[in-house]
Amino acid sequence: MSEAAERSLPVQDASIYPKGGLDVLSRAEVARLRDASSGGMHELLRRCALAVLTSGSASDDPRAARDLYPDFDIQVLQQDRGVRLELVNAPAMAFVDGVIIRGIAELLFAVVRDLAYTAIELGPQYAADLESSEGITNAVFGLLRNARVLKPQDPNLVVCWGGHSISRDEYLYTKQVGYELGLRGLDICTGCGPGAMKGPMKGATIAHAKQRKRNTRYIGITEPGIIAAESPNPIVNHLVIMPDIEKRLEAFVRMGHGIIVFPGGVGTAEEILYLLGILLHEQNAHLPFPLILTGPTIAAPYFEQIDKFIRLTLGEQAASRYQIIIGDPVEVARQMTAGVRQVREYRIAQKDSFYFNWSIDIPGEYQQPFIPSHEAMAALDLHHGRAAHALAADLRRAFSGIVAGNVKEEGMRRIEQFGPFEIHGDHDMMQALDALLRAFVEQRRMKIAGEYKPCYRVVT
Amino acid sequence: MSEAAERSLPVQDASIYPKGGLDVLSRAEVARLRDASSGGMHELLRRCALAVLTSGSASDDPRAARDLYPDFDIQVLQQDRGVRLELVNAPAMAFVDGVIIRGIAELLFAVVRDLAYTAIELGPQYAADLESSEGITNAVFGLLRNARVLKPQDPNLVVCWGGHSISRDEYLYTKQVGYELGLRGLDICTGCGPGAMKGPMKGATIAHAKQRKRNTRYIGITEPGIIAAESPNPIVNHLVIMPDIEKRLEAFVRMGHGIIVFPGGVGTAEEILYLLGILLHEQNAHLPFPLILTGPTIAAPYFEQIDKFIRLTLGEQAASRYQIIIGDPVEVARQMTAGVRQVREYRIAQKDSFYFNWSIDIPGEYQQPFIPSHEAMAALDLHHGRAAHALAADLRRAFSGIVAGNVKEEGMRRIEQFGPFEIHGDHDMMQALDALLRAFVEQRRMKIAGEYKPCYRVVT
Amino acid sequence: MSEAAERSLPVQDASIYPKGGLDVLSRAEVARLRDASSGGMHELLRRCALAVLTSGSASDDPRAARDLYPDFDIQVLQQDRGVRLELVNAPAMAFVDGVIIRGIAELLFAVVRDLAYTAIELGPQYAADLESSEGITNAVFGLLRNARVLKPQDPNLVVCWGGHSISRDEYLYTKQVGYELGLRGLDICTGCGPGAMKGPMKGATIAHAKQRKRNTRYIGITEPGIIAAESPNPIVNHLVIMPDIEKRLEAFVRMGHGIIVFPGGVGTAEEILYLLGILLHEQNAHLPFPLILTGPTIAAPYFEQIDKFIRLTLGEQAASRYQIIIGDPVEVARQMTAGVRQVREYRIAQKDSFYFNWSIDIPGEYQQPFIPSHEAMAALDLHHGRAAHALAADLRRAFSGIVAGNVKEEGMRRIEQFGPFEIHGDHDMMQALDALLRAFVEQRRMKIAGEYKPCYRVVT
Amino acid sequence: MSEAAERSLPVQDASIYPKGGLDVLSRAEVARLRDASSGGMHELLRRCALAVLTSGSASDDPRAARDLYPDFDIQVLQQDRGVRLELVNAPAMAFVDGVIIRGIAELLFAVVRDLAYTAIELGPQYAADLESSEGITNAVFGLLRNARVLKPQDPNLVVCWGGHSISRDEYLYTKQVGYELGLRGLDICTGCGPGAMKGPMKGATIAHAKQRKRNTRYIGITEPGIIAAESPNPIVNHLVIMPDIEKRLEAFVRMGHGIIVFPGGVGTAEEILYLLGILLHEQNAHLPFPLILTGPTIAAPYFEQIDKFIRLTLGEQAASRYQIIIGDPVEVARQMTAGVRQVREYRIAQKDSFYFNWSIDIPGEYQQPFIPSHEAMAALDLHHGRAAHALAADLRRAFSGIVAGNVKEEGMRRIEQFGPFEIHGDHDMMQALDALLRAFVEQRRMKIAGEYKPCYRVVT
Repeated sequence: MSEAAERSLPVQDASIYPKGGLDVLSRAEVARLRDASSGGMHELLRRCALAVLTSGSASDDPRAARDLYPDFDIQVLQQDRGVRLELVNAPAMAFVDGVIIRGIAELLFAVVRDLAYTAIELGPQYAADLESSEGITNAVFGLLRNARVLKPQDPNLVVCWGGHSISRDEYLYTKQVGYELGLRGLDICTGCGPGAMKGPMKGATIAHAKQRKRNTRYIGITEPGIIAAESPNPIVNHLVIMPDIEKRLEAFVRMGHGIIVFPGGVGTAEEILYLLGILLHEQNAHLPFPLILTGPTIAAPYFEQIDKFIRLTLGEQAASRYQIIIGDPVEVARQMTAGVRQVREYRIAQKDSFYFNWSIDIPGEYQQPFIPSHEAMAALDLHHGRAAHALAADLRRAFSGIVAGNVKEEGMRRIEQFGPFEIHGDHDMMQALDALLRAFVEQRRMKIAGEYKPCYRVVT
Repeated sequence: MSEAAERSLPVQDASIYPKGGLDVLSRAEVARLRDASSGGMHELLRRCALAVLTSGSASDDPRAARDLYPDFDIQVLQQDRGVRLELVNAPAMAFVDGVIIRGIAELLFAVVRDLAYTAIELGPQYAADLESSEGITNAVFGLLRNARVLKPQDPNLVVCWGGHSISRDEYLYTKQVGYELGLRGLDICTGCGPGAMKGPMKGATIAHAKQRKRNTRYIGITEPGIIAAESPNPIVNHLVIMPDIEKRLEAFVRMGHGIIVFPGGVGTAEEILYLLGILLHEQNAHLPFPLILTGPTIAAPYFEQIDKFIRLTLGEQAASRYQIIIGDPVEVARQMTAGVRQVREYRIAQKDSFYFNWSIDIPGEYQQPFIPSHEAMAALDLHHGRAAHALAADLRRAFSGIVAGNVKEEGMRRIEQFGPFEIHGDHDMMQALDALLRAFVEQRRMKIAGEYKPCYRVVT
Repeated sequence: MSEAAERSLPVQDASIYPKGGLDVLSRAEVARLRDASSGGMHELLRRCALAVLTSGSASDDPRAARDLYPDFDIQVLQQDRGVRLELVNAPAMAFVDGVIIRGIAELLFAVVRDLAYTAIELGPQYAADLESSEGITNAVFGLLRNARVLKPQDPNLVVCWGGHSISRDEYLYTKQVGYELGLRGLDICTGCGPGAMKGPMKGATIAHAKQRKRNTRYIGITEPGIIAAESPNPIVNHLVIMPDIEKRLEAFVRMGHGIIVFPGGVGTAEEILYLLGILLHEQNAHLPFPLILTGPTIAAPYFEQIDKFIRLTLGEQAASRYQIIIGDPVEVARQMTAGVRQVREYRIAQKDSFYFNWSIDIPGEYQQPFIPSHEAMAALDLHHGRAAHALAADLRRAFSGIVAGNVKEEGMRRIEQFGPFEIHGDHDMMQALDALLRAFVEQRRMKIAGEYKPCYRVVT
Repeated sequence: MSEAAERSLPVQDASIYPKGGLDVLSRAEVARLRDASSGGMHELLRRCALAVLTSGSASDDPRAARDLYPDFDIQVLQQDRGVRLELVNAPAMAFVDGVIIRGIAELLFAVVRDLAYTAIELGPQYAADLESSEGITNAVFGLLRNARVLKPQDPNLVVCWGGHSISRDEYLYTKQVGYELGLRGLDICTGCGPGAMKGPMKGATIAHAKQRKRNTRYIGITEPGIIAAESPNPIVNHLVIMPDIEKRLEAFVRMGHGIIVFPGGVGTAEEILYLLGILLHEQNAHLPFPLILTGPTIAAPYFEQIDKFIRLTLGEQAASRYQIIIGDPVEVARQMTAGVRQVREYRIAQKDSFYFNWSIDIPGEYQQPFIPSHEAMAALDLHHGRAAHALAADLRRAFSGIVAGNVKEEGMRRIEQFGPFEIHGDHDMMQALDALLRAFVEQRRMKIAGEYKPCYRVVT
């Protein structure tokens, strides 16, 4: 008797046939897909599939789903007609009267599609291509196109960033902003987990229904390291799994026509620093890029802290690239609508495509994956006097490491083994960083459940 | 300066052009429409339009919206191309950046369409047609067809009845049931107000999105007397305004392929007695008609009371036409799915249409409008020994009168003028009725806000 | 053994269920439809149905199809779900491997729909409404709307008039013009028979395919008296049967955004005089109405004759309302495109609808049915000195009578019984008329097969 | 003044932007496309584009179009948004009032798409892949998928082979067959030129319209060597350009669910021998593959000759794989419908895809391009005693060489330079071959215009 059965969490077996995209494959492609999914990719596939099958679940513990469904397995099988997915001991919550929910089946095939693309098209033999900045951008483009999210249509995609663990007031606020964006015909793209990644989509769904908008996009962009902790919310109708966090961030920046940042924790801080670092580059100085930091009145102190930290570390120029709007969803939506209109005009003038921002310059240091080992974290160079975009890059890495230590399996293992990361830098900067991180902890932005035990130590 | 302006509730003027249905009218039709809407129909139109423009508002006081927007007006204007609606001092909440929300515009044209149909096609010159049972059914059919809600498609329409004023737990339960219905591909029809009329639609919306169902129907059927108190919730994508409560009830029964009753107040009791009275007719004895009474665990006593009341007044046979399911949304959805399947088979066998239940026999006493004057209420014959369906008809009228006294303008005026209605009948029946009504009051099912002052007196 | 079987013309029985329009009827409507179709309307229905079932056939003898399928019958049957058509001994050419061709089934239901509308909505009890000019226009509007050919879309409907019996060169020319119209996105409306009524549709079909136009309209407007002689060509995708020739002509004029006249016989002459008579009315003096007479080079003399006849009878002003273009399909299409654009601007300026020309004034004398008895024909007042539009009305009637004598059953019977019609008038006018008619005979424009025997005598 | 201008053939310049497929390209892809099209691929692109722009023209002389439009040029230009085509001195016949016909623009982008795919995805660096049979099949699959003609839908694709130069009677017969196929819901795939490649599509177009079939496929599969001689007829709505004749033949066989052969010349003989050779392979012995040879009564002797030739050279077994039907389009369509149904069942049983026939075994000798040099032609081994499929392969090559000598530029040049090909073989076989070829000449199946001068000499 399986463990799951013991706990009597209901499970189910099923065969699933794909539609769209995976339905016209050559024999050779099916074979490669089967091999990849039964070989090195298998554990990854199993993990991501489980996240999708428990879509809508509330936990942010990446190991929870696996503990609950220890006997779950997924196989990609070949037949002349194409591929078939075999699910064994899959969570019954993904089924209705024995039939898989259609939206979940679609997300499942998105998982297979993207992992296969990564394994096959971005595999070891293409390693050289991925060393150049252009090569990485091409990889991001190829993956997004293969996921069919690049469509020639009028600019209307707003990326929403923010924490998965936010207060009820903040959550309701993200819904309200999503509602106002939706009323104005804008589509939503987020990291596809709960909290600030779900609220805007929910609000937009209601607004789109009221406006009788038919062609709606709720795009979720995730990566294997985070999907288990931030399982896709049920509204997502396009799911994309990028190979790593840097390509995920690049996808946000190249696809979005504007970005809204809600309150969040270190992940959100990482995203802000990533974007500001890029916008501070000289080549991007004249590029329109609407960026709004917003939250309900109670979140005002949070944004003051962030703002202060940015001005201290990156200077006033960085602060000129965003506006902070507190407690006014209508104003947020109006500013974003105006900003997106400017982006549209710029693209037309530049003859740039609407669906992919080729013009923005993303330096290599923002594209190369950062592996947050204890050595790498200790080596970050957080001192005044560096070029703003270079300092921003290292600050981004610092936050990235803390995210890993908090909610990613690999990072959590490292912390358990070697203790907290040490982060070095100029005294005032370290103090500001420490204050910011403490505030995150106090505001319970670090973790959904349980007591937070810091995975870092700031050394001033 | 207008009063509304004084209170500074934002208002807006607008011209609106119709789409679909009202867009291909003859000159003569436009003229008749304009005349009807500027003549006797005008106040009715103004009231219903205001209900739609404040769609989603929380109050159940029919006079509230008018007090808030005293200067609101609507005109139907003629031009060769067709009709145009002119809104003056309309609630700004129906607009986004100066443009009316498309769904609200659609509901607004539904109001004009249905009031015009009633005024023109069911006007005084057709009075004779409306005296026969068949004539009334034809009128119901004609109005529903004109509203484009009769479509040849597989049976999947579940009518949900229940209170507009229910507890949060009960509301969440109606959402949950709607979700499970939606997962199984069922569409929803309700009375289109808040509470139990909104919850199932909201739940179904999420489920339909998950199942990628495109062709979704959230049908709201209302009538001029109640629309102001139960303003259409924003999810309704088909709104129909029937001329009176009896035709509204007939529309539910002829269009629905099954009915679910959630906890509610006297209105819900009226609906249950209406349906049971009809089903108790000999001619309908063998007609499949899934009827499920359901609520969360806390609502169990409520349904026990109802059940007891029905057994006492209408007998055990009446109780055999429904099942009570407590706290199990999945079971409700499964039973309803099975019931709808039976209806489908029956219709095929009988060569009856899927979209309109011609086979069910609705006796004239259930079709003739009941005007709840003090005399009519006092004349109700609530005694044992009458045929079950005849007694049910009078019990239905008793509850109908109390609804009018509670939330309909005309009824409220009568009570203010002449004091509470008196209701007579057999002692045990009157006691049971009194107990039921008291329970409704205690459970706060009579009114959303304020202290409830009974509009009736049970005389045993 | 049936006669048809003897001649071994293959026949077939079938039950057909309607889609769209006839699929949502009330029980009472189905009953009325069944009664009408089994009563007085039955022979008419049988005749029109046979015309549709032999759609594409080459004969213009209205009795031919009935002789070939003497045992054909059609019944409209009632069932709760709606109507069913029962075909007995129907022409096998309408079926493929036992299944009726879908387009033919659609045309068949159009026949039932329009005859039923005429019998029920324009029946004896509405006779009074049909006495006023406005009442007739409303009837035309109602019938067209019920046939779902009135759609709010950009003006692009070109009516093509011309003979059903034309030379191959002329036929190819009509195809070429249709092709050039189609390339420019224009839709086609004709009388729906062969010859000049089919060519433009065929040409437009190819052009629409090349331009990947999806929403194409090939509207055929006919009437019971002519449908048997001019059976609908297979390309027609919207068929409308107007009750009589005058309403058919009004339908062309109110729906079309421009008219092209190809060579034809007396029917075409009738159409030209009808339109010119209306355009000569003072009220229509400033109305844009593109009217082009065109044919291949060999048809030049034909149009010279027509032009001369018009100038002689109606004067130079009449000639200013049309242009004649010989042998230049591209120029025809360009002029028509320019003309339709003007119509569009005029309608917008007048706030008139795009789909129905309410502005054009059609005097009662052009709307009242003309029954071509020998007395009525003899009474026509064809003299100089009358108002142009009044003279045009009588000239129109003269040609109408000759069409009836040539190809309509009722007219042919009268001629067989009483000999040719006598037509009186001023000497020069009669001479011109005689010359015109003789030319038609010589050019074989009177009849497809057999020797033409004149049904009229011009008395100068 | 350009030569074209001198001859006053109207020309036009234009910029064209792609839709679908070519509209989402990466910068790198656009650059590669631009490079390929301005480099080695340019002359090929220019030639194919010209064929498309003169689509519907009657000549089969590959040099005619170029002589008529000597100054025509096409450039693929890069811009951030994607690609743009610049046409200079393009045939005015492809435009309407200065705007390119949309269908022709689509075909133009199909040309760029397929030539680019061939140049980039099947370029020199993949030469090794194209050496194995599996590699070639994958290339065919990849190209067809990239052209979006592989769709998971019910089997209904009938390939029609036959001559571009056929008699009027034969042409009308191919239309009639296409009509009957279309009535039965079948789609058409041909070599996309005139004659037997156009007739079936035209007939099917009318039938599809009558059956109100919306999703219609008229697929034209061509190759650079033949497109100029057989310019796409205007009905083709999917055009695919395969890199060479062998891949084109493989595309027909893998995509088609059945094949109909109309009268034709050497090209058609080549196609028959190609298919029979494959079907004679042991591995394909049990594969259902409907193959019908058909023509009007006057074509009976033609098929007798072919049949006799096949029986003589390949034996009775070969003759058992086809049926000959003379003068009966309905029977052809019925047999084909039955055959396609069998194919459907077989694919389901084998779990093979509907859209690509993976199961059929095509030996390498049928896949490797045959370059018809004088040496290669002389080396063909046409003797009794060889395995049927091996002999069929060489016979196929013999006909292929003659096609090249007749209508392909390269082949015509060789013949002009070195005189006719010599073909050696067994006496009876050579006699039969000679008789067959002479008959083709007599029946004027070799060339549309001018006197035919044989490009071969049969040496017995």
